[in-house]
Amino acid sequence: MITQDFQQKLSEKAKQAEAIVYRFLPPESGYQKTVLEAMNYSVEAGGKRLRPLFMMASFRLFGGQGEIVEPFMAAMEMIHTYSLVHDDLPAMDNDDYRRGRHTTWKAYGEAMGVLAGDGLLNYAFETALKAFDVAASEEYPRVISALQVLAKKAGVYGMIGGQCADVEAEKKQIELTEDRLLFIHELKTAALIQSSLMIGAILAGASPEQADKMERLGYDIGVAFQIQDDILDVIGDSEELGKPVGSDAKNEKQTYVTIHGLENSRKEVERLSKEAISLLQELNGDSAFLEGMVDYLIDRRK
Amino acid sequence: MITQDFQQKLSEKAKQAEAIVYRFLPPESGYQKTVLEAMNYSVEAGGKRLRPLFMMASFRLFGGQGEIVEPFMAAMEMIHTYSLVHDDLPAMDNDDYRRGRHTTWKAYGEAMGVLAGDGLLNYAFETALKAFDVAASEEYPRVISALQVLAKKAGVYGMIGGQCADVEAEKKQIELTEDRLLFIHELKTAALIQSSLMIGAILAGASPEQADKMERLGYDIGVAFQIQDDILDVIGDSEELGKPVGSDAKNEKQTYVTIHGLENSRKEVERLSKEAISLLQELNGDSAFLEGMVDYLIDRRK
Repeated sequence: MITQDFQQKLSEKAKQAEAIVYRFLPPESGYQKTVLEAMNYSVEAGGKRLRPLFMMASFRLFGGQGEIVEPFMAAMEMIHTYSLVHDDLPAMDNDDYRRGRHTTWKAYGEAMGVLAGDGLLNYAFETALKAFDVAASEEYPRVISALQVLAKKAGVYGMIGGQCADVEAEKKQIELTEDRLLFIHELKTAALIQSSLMIGAILAGASPEQADKMERLGYDIGVAFQIQDDILDVIGDSEELGKPVGSDAKNEKQTYVTIHGLENSRKEVERLSKEAISLLQELNGDSAFLEGMVDYLIDRRK
Repeated sequence: MITQDFQQKLSEKAKQAEAIVYRFLPPESGYQKTVLEAMNYSVEAGGKRLRPLFMMASFRLFGGQGEIVEPFMAAMEMIHTYSLVHDDLPAMDNDDYRRGRHTTWKAYGEAMGVLAGDGLLNYAFETALKAFDVAASEEYPRVISALQVLAKKAGVYGMIGGQCADVEAEKKQIELTEDRLLFIHELKTAALIQSSLMIGAILAGASPEQADKMERLGYDIGVAFQIQDDILDVIGDSEELGKPVGSDAKNEKQTYVTIHGLENSRKEVERLSKEAISLLQELNGDSAFLEGMVDYLIDRRK
């Protein structure tokens, strides 16, 4: 159950995370001013800042202190943002609007849309590398490990891999099996949540086993979120969701619900959600906020 | 003067560099197979492998040994390749052919063209991070510094910044001053050469002053190469260049030659080329191969 108190806390923490992300955005000057403006326009378009929030919460859960996590929080949001910027391109989803504003390519032209996405992805790594400037040399292995997770989960064995499988499924070039569908949900949606939770833990000095648990937690949250999305498409409130109910069916889109039916889909969300909560409780830390996040993201029908 | 002996050596070294790059390409399997194929197709399209060659030569010049440079050589070629893949997109230059084969988007579709470029850029960082696996912990600061150079020179303060200024100049949205032209040449062309030379030096343990000299050397080579390109467009042999002579004039393209005239442009190439050679000779190492590269790239009229 999501309380008003939690909503308040979430909104405060999201503002804090956003302020951290903004501090790492590049100044808009020089002959390359336009691409810098387009990058910042994209990040400043808003959003729930869920990934930096997850990272910060995981960092705190494992006792992390200091600024070392901040460049990674900003880098994660830049990666998430670049994926939206390229997703909106005419070559991909061809979207003109996002969150009530023109998409980046619509505002700055298609060439700048490509370059702003590239710029954000590249700048994410430039930014994450700044963690070395505030790390003690004995912390280097943590930063290195965090960088490896960041790169892997954003790339062809993470988000980009999921995008590829999704693009092919949407074009119906390839039959969408359950295995492929879960691959897409895991890589396209869960990967950056896994990465955020893992990086927070690693930078705080968590053990490899604990980082593995965070990876599992990210899977549960990401996949449950996606299945819940499919369920809400069938039964949900169109106003709250911001897209017409039943749009998947109209588009003949294969989803977890079309494969398994509504009841089994609900059971799977329930199972994933319970697993997520028990993973958090096993850690014996102050996981109240992260448990609230699981509730908030998965049990959206409440 | 470019001897047959040098040509032979260059071609051997390019093959060696290419073999190293190929070893780091991802296997083509999994549900994301198509994007992996598109990435490898792009890298395997050929090219002179100049950037990894520069990196290896600089690494050797400063006494570097071992494998630590190899992931960076591969990463550099992946970054160069992704920039071509995105450059060829309909949203940018809209090219169907490169080196006699279909461009990536033409072979795999536009969405895959975007994703393959993203995949290569991201995989470049995944690959460069592998240097930590073969580095002793006292070499971590070198690898960190090399990563910082890699990221900066590829991004908005390097290649992408140059692309942005170039896109705007080509659309004639903004007047092309000499200052802006040199900015484009430096960032779009020289940045990755600078980065290659600097990373080779840094990984071999060169001092910051020596790395600065390599940055200057990369500037001289990159900018001289571009001005020479503009000169050859006016006077050159169209067969050797592979593009019709005078195409810049036909496109009313502003170049160094249109701004300064042929004679002054030649003098500037001469000056940059001499500076490059004397920078190399100041190092008192075995710089014969790099001097040959300067000759080969700049004095192409010989």
